[in-house]
Amino acid sequence: MPSIFTKIVNGEIPAYKVAETDKFLAFLDVRPNVKGHTLCIPKEEVNKLFDLDEETYMQLMAFSRKVAKGVEKAVPCKRVGVAVVGLEVPHVHVHLIPLNNMSDMNFAQSVSLSEEEFQQIADDIKANI
Amino acid sequence: MPSIFTKIVNGEIPAYKVAETDKFLAFLDVRPNVKGHTLCIPKEEVNKLFDLDEETYMQLMAFSRKVAKGVEKAVPCKRVGVAVVGLEVPHVHVHLIPLNNMSDMNFAQSVSLSEEEFQQIADDIKANI
Repeated sequence: MPSIFTKIVNGEIPAYKVAETDKFLAFLDVRPNVKGHTLCIPKEEVNKLFDLDEETYMQLMAFSRKVAKGVEKAVPCKRVGVAVVGLEVPHVHVHLIPLNNMSDMNFAQSVSLSEEEFQQIADDIKANI
Repeated sequence: MPSIFTKIVNGEIPAYKVAETDKFLAFLDVRPNVKGHTLCIPKEEVNKLFDLDEETYMQLMAFSRKVAKGVEKAVPCKRVGVAVVGLEVPHVHVHLIPLNNMSDMNFAQSVSLSEEEFQQIADDIKANI
């Protein structure tokens, strides 16, 4: 069964996209730790980060850096944190999380945003990439 | 004042090292979330990950991948998670965390290990890189 992220890549599920190339996609996490929490994925469905071939891994990291710099400009924060976990969705995803406190890295917390807020922050990040 | 990690690089503070190049160093986190929790740093003291120049950032990511593959072989786990936070030590460090549960990403938890256990796991990881 395709992952939820493959469904986003294929346009079967909507997402607040912020950047896209032929191989990678960045969009807002719909259950964000904090406002501006963004996911970067390879379009190819691979389960684990370190199972990606070296070229794709390096390209994903370069793509994530570009997106992170946009997040950092668009969202007030002390810095942008990174996390790759993947125990829940078996499709590589790099979390980019605008951090102000250590607790912002806690995936057990999430903030509620309206559709308008999601769209606004996606537009702001996109404009800064 | 040099960071605690610069002091490790300079040999002023001991560490359980697992890999080293002219630009990068990997060693065990002394306050590990779980056994095998490893840190990868650039020797140059830069505060934020995304302030590293692109070349150094990419080299750090390639170095972290090699170390992660060693951690994955040496430590029983479902996968190796990644985190870059940096709110506490202002010197870029990539956390590599052997994961079995989501809670293993929680920096509020840590396990106690003896010097012998630290040394053994460092040796095991080193042998697998």
